[in-house]
Amino acid sequence: MSDERLARLRALLDARLLDAALVSRNANRRYFSGFRLGDAEGPTSGWSGSLLVTRDAALIFADSRYTEQARQQAPGWELVATTGPIAMELPGVLLRHEVASLGAEAAVMSHADWSALAAAAPGTELHAIDAELVPLRAIKTTAEIDAIERACALTDACFDHLVEFVEPGMTEEMVALELERFFRTQGAEGLAFEPIVLAGPRAAMPHGRPSDAPIERGNVLLIDFGCSVDGYRSDMTRTLFVGDVPDDVRRYHDAVREAQQAAIDAIAIGANGQDLDALARERIEREGVAAYEHGLGHGIGLETHEAPSLRRSVASALEAGMVFSVEPGIYLPGVTGIRIEDIVALTASGPQLLTRSTREPIAIG
Amino acid sequence: MSDERLARLRALLDARLLDAALVSRNANRRYFSGFRLGDAEGPTSGWSGSLLVTRDAALIFADSRYTEQARQQAPGWELVATTGPIAMELPGVLLRHEVASLGAEAAVMSHADWSALAAAAPGTELHAIDAELVPLRAIKTTAEIDAIERACALTDACFDHLVEFVEPGMTEEMVALELERFFRTQGAEGLAFEPIVLAGPRAAMPHGRPSDAPIERGNVLLIDFGCSVDGYRSDMTRTLFVGDVPDDVRRYHDAVREAQQAAIDAIAIGANGQDLDALARERIEREGVAAYEHGLGHGIGLETHEAPSLRRSVASALEAGMVFSVEPGIYLPGVTGIRIEDIVALTASGPQLLTRSTREPIAIG
Repeated sequence: MSDERLARLRALLDARLLDAALVSRNANRRYFSGFRLGDAEGPTSGWSGSLLVTRDAALIFADSRYTEQARQQAPGWELVATTGPIAMELPGVLLRHEVASLGAEAAVMSHADWSALAAAAPGTELHAIDAELVPLRAIKTTAEIDAIERACALTDACFDHLVEFVEPGMTEEMVALELERFFRTQGAEGLAFEPIVLAGPRAAMPHGRPSDAPIERGNVLLIDFGCSVDGYRSDMTRTLFVGDVPDDVRRYHDAVREAQQAAIDAIAIGANGQDLDALARERIEREGVAAYEHGLGHGIGLETHEAPSLRRSVASALEAGMVFSVEPGIYLPGVTGIRIEDIVALTASGPQLLTRSTREPIAIG
Repeated sequence: MSDERLARLRALLDARLLDAALVSRNANRRYFSGFRLGDAEGPTSGWSGSLLVTRDAALIFADSRYTEQARQQAPGWELVATTGPIAMELPGVLLRHEVASLGAEAAVMSHADWSALAAAAPGTELHAIDAELVPLRAIKTTAEIDAIERACALTDACFDHLVEFVEPGMTEEMVALELERFFRTQGAEGLAFEPIVLAGPRAAMPHGRPSDAPIERGNVLLIDFGCSVDGYRSDMTRTLFVGDVPDDVRRYHDAVREAQQAAIDAIAIGANGQDLDALARERIEREGVAAYEHGLGHGIGLETHEAPSLRRSVASALEAGMVFSVEPGIYLPGVTGIRIEDIVALTASGPQLLTRSTREPIAIG
């Protein structure tokens, strides 16, 4: 249990005049208590791992499948064993702790749970506190940045391995499987997300899935991947050349690299994410092609996508302790796609690249 | 697009006096439209892939990352490109289609989305239809049972491979990684769930995660695993003996096997899941040990856990077309754990085992 984190959560109770906060989001549960659930466990875990924090108590709920785990991973928390759904079990606890106003995560709890809980606990008012929880994790401590850096270092090592491993004729899926094998045998807790491995024209899909399409000479090979270490994530994209690629592909790769560098150079405490996005976008449009439709970048930590968001539509002031991706791209549907993505930590002394693989074009095969 | 499935959804509109249904649950989206999302994609996909079905229209929503995929996977559906959150974009569509009453999945939609949508579409009443959607997928067609059978056959093949592969000294994680490699290189779409591989006393955790604990002689090795083929899942558990195991472990294994067989023998159209559970439980308690705390079994299909639920606390009448697991176990905390799980399809001519690996004790190493 981190006393400092809990203190910030309790300060939120004061600011919002709440008696307690119910924490449901996986990453928030882990942030405050240490309790871990895998990304795919949500649907079957019920509300095990949920936290209730009042001014003088810190409770963790778990059904019989998770009590042992809660005891081990969240040692400072009072364990409440549950056997039924939240609307059946929580109201008694709220009564016992005299919770008249409860903050909860409306964007995470289902409407069914929320409304059943509201009906079953008529003495407790429910208030959404999602927006107030977001900034709590946006500023990282040195230890958190260190964990992200270790995930990034493993990602760099994986990239080196892939450059040796990939050969024309392999399928996208084979490459995805190999990178997962690497992460899982080299100490990662898991993947940060389903890896994107796309060859040739398929690389134009910003969000494609690896297929059984073979990688051919003349293709680009876009690899967007990351792992988690102690819960903290990495996220990196490189676009390789398989054999000789057309000249305009090389030119686009240069443009994306320069666009990314222009954005990175402008990173500073107080800078606006919108302005960084504009700088990258401008450089790409100078090539006479459309810039990426997605945002320039996203915060990263216990979740692969978290605050801040660096994009055209939202102003965002960068602060010391923020860690985020910078990932411009060019996508020509049916033709090719190029993206370069790195993770940057903004420290008191300036921006620091946490992913360090070369951004120079690499030709394989 | 399956016209028959859509017709059943529209019959639900009639029964509930609704103008339209909004389908949000991944498995339901795929069931009606064919649109696929990976298990871990939920958090980043927004509401892409959501369906709106009125009496004369069938719409699929997708942001720019998913429009191409929606076109390919849901060809009969009218694609609506989105750029913002559901509460911003859906109200206009509801107006255009004159939807005064909308059925939606309250257990899937977040409370934030539900309440923002309700506020932004004051002319549309929202009604929860989760309970009415559940039975739609519970009765499988021959084609669906065939897909589950293919997933089960791949799981049997994987088990044969593991029996050859596993050796004392390997870690639980190595076995988990190998079974994933097998599935992904042998044609599975993915894993049905994070595999459970637990050695020795760790097998007493019905829900443990593979660790770096080595598998030792004298241990049991409990492997609970499954894959998906064309979206349909498998789920099987076997408990291996590593070298010589104590006599009582052998006796418990026999008891679990007989408990499972007693339940399987009682499967019939109209049988009650509660009674099956009681039969298995009785056989285990005859050994003088506590029976499993979890249910006897769960339906399986596009989700690993779906209707029906076979458990002590809920009456459930089995119907032709249902496919479900039968998985009794014995768990002795700190000592050992044994579970045997198979998938059964209940057809018009009786129960049919879809997983076919031997349930006789197997000793390895």
